[in-house]
Amino acid sequence: MERMSRQLEFLMEIDKVKNIFRQTWLADGNRKENDAEHSWHLAVAAFLLKEYAAQEVDVLKVILMVLIHDLVEIDAGDTYAYDAKGAETKRVREEAAAERIFGILPEDQGMYFRELWEEFERYESADAKYAHLLDNFQPLLLNHESGGLSWREHGVKKSQIYKRNEKIEETSPQVWEKMKEIIDRHIQLGDVKDE
Amino acid sequence: MERMSRQLEFLMEIDKVKNIFRQTWLADGNRKENDAEHSWHLAVAAFLLKEYAAQEVDVLKVILMVLIHDLVEIDAGDTYAYDAKGAETKRVREEAAAERIFGILPEDQGMYFRELWEEFERYESADAKYAHLLDNFQPLLLNHESGGLSWREHGVKKSQIYKRNEKIEETSPQVWEKMKEIIDRHIQLGDVKDE
Repeated sequence: MERMSRQLEFLMEIDKVKNIFRQTWLADGNRKENDAEHSWHLAVAAFLLKEYAAQEVDVLKVILMVLIHDLVEIDAGDTYAYDAKGAETKRVREEAAAERIFGILPEDQGMYFRELWEEFERYESADAKYAHLLDNFQPLLLNHESGGLSWREHGVKKSQIYKRNEKIEETSPQVWEKMKEIIDRHIQLGDVKDE
Repeated sequence: MERMSRQLEFLMEIDKVKNIFRQTWLADGNRKENDAEHSWHLAVAAFLLKEYAAQEVDVLKVILMVLIHDLVEIDAGDTYAYDAKGAETKRVREEAAAERIFGILPEDQGMYFRELWEEFERYESADAKYAHLLDNFQPLLLNHESGGLSWREHGVKKSQIYKRNEKIEETSPQVWEKMKEIIDRHIQLGDVKDE
């Protein structure tokens, strides 16, 4: 029962991400989204949009990757995509968090999740690139639905969005076309700065 | 682009489950849980607890099943596990919801999700039984963590919990042992009525 106890302790520990709020507003614009909701949304999208991945992806692996990719924020907190100062210390804070949180699990499962998270962070494999595409595309869609709220709130520039999404075109030309269309629209609307 | 438009419309439609609240309290007892958070939690658990399923399960299929099993509540609302009156009309309300919501998707994907949901509802296959085990075990764990809040709030009886979980023992003897242990504990504490 020692093994099951560790698995259940982990499942109760990760309940905390339901209280870690992101900078993205829900589609209805009424409140911001938390990490658990975001991860659920990416997992559904991982299955539905896989036909647009330029390289073949392992859907089960990508789903697991997106389900657990934000767990480190239980200790490290959410670092906004365009927060340059937070980004400097993000890696160190998140490494320590991964050590503690995945360490709750039985060793085989903890190591597997840790490796999945590391693969996501390296942003090199086809699976990691597709997971990042989902992680960037989903908030863009929500931002679009909520009328560009988060972009206006943070004074986000076109150049920042393009920089953050520089690997999307190689990951999926079709998704990148759609993203550019949405970004352009919000530049015209004045939600994103044309800089 | 017609196909992608339908996929993205679906992804924005299902954002609404983030605002559908259940009767289960989060582990910290501060607020109730919503369907998106619940589904995310079940998906992680589906992977971690698969070794306890008495019959072999298709983990990817179970994960997809739990990710989408509550989408019908966008139209039909959440029916509490021990709400006998709501249960009478639940099936009709949820069928209509499935028709509309899964109908937003391209036909192949909409039919696949619809069939997954129907399989879950029939509660017969090994995959559906394991998905139901997760759907019952996770709120029990949260209820335990939050001090039996939801059981006390609704005056829940042991016989109701046993009835609802009558297929758990055949699905996983180990999980059923753990569940009984937790239920017994909360009978002793007076959170669950010993009837």
